[in-house]
Amino acid sequence: MYETIKLNLNNLKNNKIFELTVVAVIIISALEIGAKTFSLPNTAISITHVLDIFITLFFLFEISVRFIADDDKKRFFKKGWNVFDTLVVAISLVPINDSEMALLARLIRVFRVLRMVSVVPELRILINSLIKALPQLGYVILLMFIIFYIYAAIGSFIFNDINPKLWGDIAISMLTLFRIMTFEDWTDIQYETMEVYPMSWVFYLSFIFFTAFAFLNMVIGIVVNVMEDERAKMRQEKESAKNIPTIEDLHSEIQELKKLIQQQSENRKDT
Amino acid sequence: MYETIKLNLNNLKNNKIFELTVVAVIIISALEIGAKTFSLPNTAISITHVLDIFITLFFLFEISVRFIADDDKKRFFKKGWNVFDTLVVAISLVPINDSEMALLARLIRVFRVLRMVSVVPELRILINSLIKALPQLGYVILLMFIIFYIYAAIGSFIFNDINPKLWGDIAISMLTLFRIMTFEDWTDIQYETMEVYPMSWVFYLSFIFFTAFAFLNMVIGIVVNVMEDERAKMRQEKESAKNIPTIEDLHSEIQELKKLIQQQSENRKDT
Amino acid sequence: MYETIKLNLNNLKNNKIFELTVVAVIIISALEIGAKTFSLPNTAISITHVLDIFITLFFLFEISVRFIADDDKKRFFKKGWNVFDTLVVAISLVPINDSEMALLARLIRVFRVLRMVSVVPELRILINSLIKALPQLGYVILLMFIIFYIYAAIGSFIFNDINPKLWGDIAISMLTLFRIMTFEDWTDIQYETMEVYPMSWVFYLSFIFFTAFAFLNMVIGIVVNVMEDERAKMRQEKESAKNIPTIEDLHSEIQELKKLIQQQSENRKDT
Amino acid sequence: MYETIKLNLNNLKNNKIFELTVVAVIIISALEIGAKTFSLPNTAISITHVLDIFITLFFLFEISVRFIADDDKKRFFKKGWNVFDTLVVAISLVPINDSEMALLARLIRVFRVLRMVSVVPELRILINSLIKALPQLGYVILLMFIIFYIYAAIGSFIFNDINPKLWGDIAISMLTLFRIMTFEDWTDIQYETMEVYPMSWVFYLSFIFFTAFAFLNMVIGIVVNVMEDERAKMRQEKESAKNIPTIEDLHSEIQELKKLIQQQSENRKDT
Repeated sequence: MYETIKLNLNNLKNNKIFELTVVAVIIISALEIGAKTFSLPNTAISITHVLDIFITLFFLFEISVRFIADDDKKRFFKKGWNVFDTLVVAISLVPINDSEMALLARLIRVFRVLRMVSVVPELRILINSLIKALPQLGYVILLMFIIFYIYAAIGSFIFNDINPKLWGDIAISMLTLFRIMTFEDWTDIQYETMEVYPMSWVFYLSFIFFTAFAFLNMVIGIVVNVMEDERAKMRQEKESAKNIPTIEDLHSEIQELKKLIQQQSENRKDT
Repeated sequence: MYETIKLNLNNLKNNKIFELTVVAVIIISALEIGAKTFSLPNTAISITHVLDIFITLFFLFEISVRFIADDDKKRFFKKGWNVFDTLVVAISLVPINDSEMALLARLIRVFRVLRMVSVVPELRILINSLIKALPQLGYVILLMFIIFYIYAAIGSFIFNDINPKLWGDIAISMLTLFRIMTFEDWTDIQYETMEVYPMSWVFYLSFIFFTAFAFLNMVIGIVVNVMEDERAKMRQEKESAKNIPTIEDLHSEIQELKKLIQQQSENRKDT
Repeated sequence: MYETIKLNLNNLKNNKIFELTVVAVIIISALEIGAKTFSLPNTAISITHVLDIFITLFFLFEISVRFIADDDKKRFFKKGWNVFDTLVVAISLVPINDSEMALLARLIRVFRVLRMVSVVPELRILINSLIKALPQLGYVILLMFIIFYIYAAIGSFIFNDINPKLWGDIAISMLTLFRIMTFEDWTDIQYETMEVYPMSWVFYLSFIFFTAFAFLNMVIGIVVNVMEDERAKMRQEKESAKNIPTIEDLHSEIQELKKLIQQQSENRKDT
Repeated sequence: MYETIKLNLNNLKNNKIFELTVVAVIIISALEIGAKTFSLPNTAISITHVLDIFITLFFLFEISVRFIADDDKKRFFKKGWNVFDTLVVAISLVPINDSEMALLARLIRVFRVLRMVSVVPELRILINSLIKALPQLGYVILLMFIIFYIYAAIGSFIFNDINPKLWGDIAISMLTLFRIMTFEDWTDIQYETMEVYPMSWVFYLSFIFFTAFAFLNMVIGIVVNVMEDERAKMRQEKESAKNIPTIEDLHSEIQELKKLIQQQSENRKDT
């Protein structure tokens, strides 16, 4: 009997209409979250309460369907996206009545929108490729962090007395340096310190130069990686199309020809 | 008789001088629109009224010529550019005397300048390539919209009380986030919220990181697409130049050689 | 006798020390121009007067040497860089005593620094490549201009009453739009107009989207052009290295082999 | 006996645990520098004093180990990273008790964090590649400097009276131009000068255009260089994999075949 339920749920899971319903409910939950940010009349608020319960139950139903329909229960939670979906559903089941926690409850519901990514395969691929690109960039990010750390240390040693709000300690200084990297009113900061240390423009210009250069390196790194992946794909395509003779094939065939001709010569000598 | 008119109009349509006249009239209409933004003497204003009528009539004449000269009347309106041209001419024919609508009338005339794009083939190709690139980027734009939506929802939940002008509802919050993405005085917004929530810099930095990363992905996506198109073109060129022998040709020729030599051997055995 | 002078001057022109002297004098003239922007003591000012005369005379001497040493006097002025050098020297020869014109005289001397570009071949190549790239980008720049023109016209029609300093006429509006393209305090402009027209954010966001997209297209256009040039170079290199046998060579050689074997067969039949 | 010490130290140097200890001490020294920027209790300050001495001694020990373990003492100081490490250690050994010099002592210790780069090979490669890229970009940087210099000279001649804080002399003007290049409140500067010289927008727009173009050129230059390096690597890979026959190999083998067949023919004639 369990098997028939499982089969039925599997059919439901792969049903096109069911998939579209899931996407529709996610969009409705997103619109509801957006609507709540506007000041709503009381009737609308009571509607959203009902909607909330419906969406929570629907998501619970959907994740149950997918879990029961899966053959290998252990492997189910090894997929990051399944864990993510289950967590989002589980947390929204926790009853939060306390008004202080209302904000937290709202925030958790926001993450339901992220379920859009786990449901649409194309978005899942995009996110996966972003995550895969991160370790490749690891050392450039580490180098950038070292540059930030050194400049933040120097900045908070020298400029601390000028403006503690910007250079108070190494953490605040790093935030200020990030602001300088985005060119956000960075000359205001510069002119302020240049009144005490006229040469402090060296600090800012060298920092901008180093971070711009490191960032450029990062971009080029990604482009080169993408290009290499492309090329690797092309090679595989070629190899799979093995009907086409390669230079190596020609080589071995010419070798055969040689043997044939040499045999002829030997045969003739014998006769 | 209709056929002779059609032939004459077709000759006119393809006439080099007629084409240049059309471009000239578009430029004149553009200059007129520009001139109207300056405060003009009365005589100049009456001249622009006459010019307006002349340009409208000329555009009506030109689109008529192109419509009559076309062989397939049904297909004429299947081309987007023809529809665009006809719409621009048709709307400017609507008589607007009401002073309240004067602004609208002016705005419609501005779109005449866009006719430049429909007349110059090179610009038409550029716009077409932009439109073609959009669907390829569809999922990256969707992902970016989801990021914006989630951050806007969080922002308007948490920061609403701090500054309703920036975080009042989800729509205003998305506009504020776009501003942050362009780095426009984003630290002002950040410092304001950091006074209440000292950890809110996480919100801003993670948002900048995600949108920068998604944008980078978009750029690289376009570059890779362009490169693939280039390569596809190159392959086509090679195939069209079939005089040049390929490795496959060599292969078949060596095979023939082999047969010849084997025949020799067999012949000899026979003798 | 004229020939011997010409030969001597030609030797002088190609002399390594003479070339370095020219570079040195240009650097001195650049330093002198820089020094004049500081408030100098009287003695230093009189030194710069003497320096000015010396530099002018030296440049006159150098351009004369290059002109006389050239074989083809007519072709001399067909090279853009020679015309540029002669103009810079000629204009600095015009005596300007009037104090009102002193600023103009200073400005002309600034352009002497540009002679650095005409003297160092590597810089000349860089500038030439920039100039060559411009016409290729012509249509993208034209498209961008049309976008600017249309938005400026709309802007000055609608927002003129809100802030005439930013949207007074089409020229000022285009400058304001350029400011928006660089993201320079663009939200100040936006918030101002949004108070009257709450939907005016559509105007700004669509403008930023179009210009960013056109700009991206431009960058990719340049990259693709550069890549094509690279590939063309590679092909030329391969063709010039004709020692290396190509597939075509193999083809013709296999053809020869075939003939040889066929002759053998025929010979045997004859015997 | 010296040889045995050397061997022992060499073993120690290449010991995995020793390498990790060095990285750990560098991280501790970095954290200590960061901690000092916060206001610490007295006990913590005395701990940092002890830590300082320990770190200095450890670095001295580590550099000694590496120096003694090295076979070629002369070559040791020819490697830039060794010189850098030795300098950092040597300077931090100088006793600075004077309170005025305390700031300098702190700054020197900051550079210890840079030892992270000299210890982690991947970071060393990144920095090396940055340094290698610089001379290739030399002429673009020189061109950009000339553009800056000319505009700064013009700016300080014309705008000096309007705002000496921004255009006082050529050095301040270059800093102002760098600010304009980063689009930092550049319209404030522009509007100020446009009140006196309404056409001065030409100055700003042409400057932005030239520097943006030169910068674009630089980026593309780097990308092309990276691509060329990639291609060079690919060629080397192919050559090293000499098992695979090339077109040249085929050529020589067909030549051999030819000879064989010709010999056959000659042999037959002889018989």
